[in-house]
Amino acid sequence: MFASVIGLGSMGRGIAKTLLNAGWTIRGFDLNAKALADFQACGGISCPNVASAVEGQSVVISVVVNADQTEDLLFGSGFVASSMARGGLFISCATMAPARAEALAAKVEAAGLLYLDAPISGGAARAAAGELTIMASGTPEAFDAAAPVLEAIAAKVFRLGDAAGRAAAMKMVNQLLAGVHIAAASEAMVLAARLGLDLQAVYDVITSSAGNSWMFENRMPHVIDGDYSPLSSVEIFVKDLGIINDMSRALRFPSPIAAAALQMYLAASGTGLGGEDDSAVAKVYAGLAGVALPGAKA
Amino acid sequence: MFASVIGLGSMGRGIAKTLLNAGWTIRGFDLNAKALADFQACGGISCPNVASAVEGQSVVISVVVNADQTEDLLFGSGFVASSMARGGLFISCATMAPARAEALAAKVEAAGLLYLDAPISGGAARAAAGELTIMASGTPEAFDAAAPVLEAIAAKVFRLGDAAGRAAAMKMVNQLLAGVHIAAASEAMVLAARLGLDLQAVYDVITSSAGNSWMFENRMPHVIDGDYSPLSSVEIFVKDLGIINDMSRALRFPSPIAAAALQMYLAASGTGLGGEDDSAVAKVYAGLAGVALPGAKA
Repeated sequence: MFASVIGLGSMGRGIAKTLLNAGWTIRGFDLNAKALADFQACGGISCPNVASAVEGQSVVISVVVNADQTEDLLFGSGFVASSMARGGLFISCATMAPARAEALAAKVEAAGLLYLDAPISGGAARAAAGELTIMASGTPEAFDAAAPVLEAIAAKVFRLGDAAGRAAAMKMVNQLLAGVHIAAASEAMVLAARLGLDLQAVYDVITSSAGNSWMFENRMPHVIDGDYSPLSSVEIFVKDLGIINDMSRALRFPSPIAAAALQMYLAASGTGLGGEDDSAVAKVYAGLAGVALPGAKA
Repeated sequence: MFASVIGLGSMGRGIAKTLLNAGWTIRGFDLNAKALADFQACGGISCPNVASAVEGQSVVISVVVNADQTEDLLFGSGFVASSMARGGLFISCATMAPARAEALAAKVEAAGLLYLDAPISGGAARAAAGELTIMASGTPEAFDAAAPVLEAIAAKVFRLGDAAGRAAAMKMVNQLLAGVHIAAASEAMVLAARLGLDLQAVYDVITSSAGNSWMFENRMPHVIDGDYSPLSSVEIFVKDLGIINDMSRALRFPSPIAAAALQMYLAASGTGLGGEDDSAVAKVYAGLAGVALPGAKA
């Protein structure tokens, strides 16, 4: 079977490799030459630009970062909407505001294509293992066309309705929680350090207690190891909690906890940590409170 | 074996019943007559006041709400420190600031008794099943004396050092996270309702995604069912995030996310929801945003 994957970062690379391992023929593109070479080394057909990656293809999976990049792919510099096979399926995995997903779907459908709103969750490791959680919404025709892809790359597919935007809304709810939980985990972990507690003991206790979260369990080893190599960066939550902030304001919905968390990601980005792992928010707390974390330069 | 349990609320009752089921002889007291009658119906020896419950006893387990109540038990109206057997063990389960635990331990030890700082986590169901997580710190003598109790009531005991206060500090770190997670879960759940998402679908997706937390999974069924019967009340987090607030201020440690969460519990309490389940914070968001939650009066 054939598909194109646009965007070969940690999530797109995992999806592409999963499909390659399942015997698919995959054309791919990424602006990052190293990502593209890695994809080719795994058996993918690397292409010099988006248009050549999607030309005449019936299934295009977009794993770019946001709504603007998705729109540019489709209707701007990528020419996807006018290049892929008529009646083909565009699967959009980027996290974006529901209204943007609705608008993109309408434009894509007007161009004679199918659109599946399909944000993903689970992280790079599960992407590579073909075990993503996918939140999906779209027309029954889009779901039918997407079935073989979803079956290959996901452990769980939540079907959230017949209209694009429903899945995007669900993903934003998840991102609110994910972003708050990483910042709260950082706040708690640095407070623990300030109180003189052993951080590995804190990890062991919290992961066995009512204070645990998926993000605490997944991210706090980075703080304990002092290793902020980005799996997912601070800038992702500057973006996603920024979308929550915009949505909340538009809806007249107060979201004070997400707002407080956003400030901490902004502080992290503002102090030059934007490209580090999102758990680098802990460094902001450490700096503000005069606490030395593992791995800190003396 | 013999012990006294003071405070027979949801956690104390579970601890007492677990010990009774294991064949212990348990004397107990609670100000609430119904709690006391329930304890007696399970085979406990209900006592008319604290002093008669602890008189001459070698092991007293205190499952009251806070440091002030613990101190009043020991040295105020309860006369515990002067009533129990010399050399006996006082196990303190209340959540409190580390400095209060240190001071209480010093006073208890000066009175010729052993003190174990032993806050608990896990909720009422795990208390009743003898499967609590216990964070404990204290002298080796206190741990030796406490061993049979801890073995009976806990699935996990984390031994956090030789000094009272270390366990209290760990518990505060857990409570910071627990309190933030319930408020964030409420913020996310009501935003989801505002976005028109089906709340059961939100629950199913989030509990399979990176946005999950122990508290989201445990508390959000209350919101979906519209049932705010208190398992643990709003006032508990007014207290515990209040302690975090006090500690943070004293330590010059900024904790903006805990601070934002505390405001929501204060709003819940201020609007009359203090005695309801802590998930009633969701009602505050619903009220602020004009969202109807399940179970709301029309």
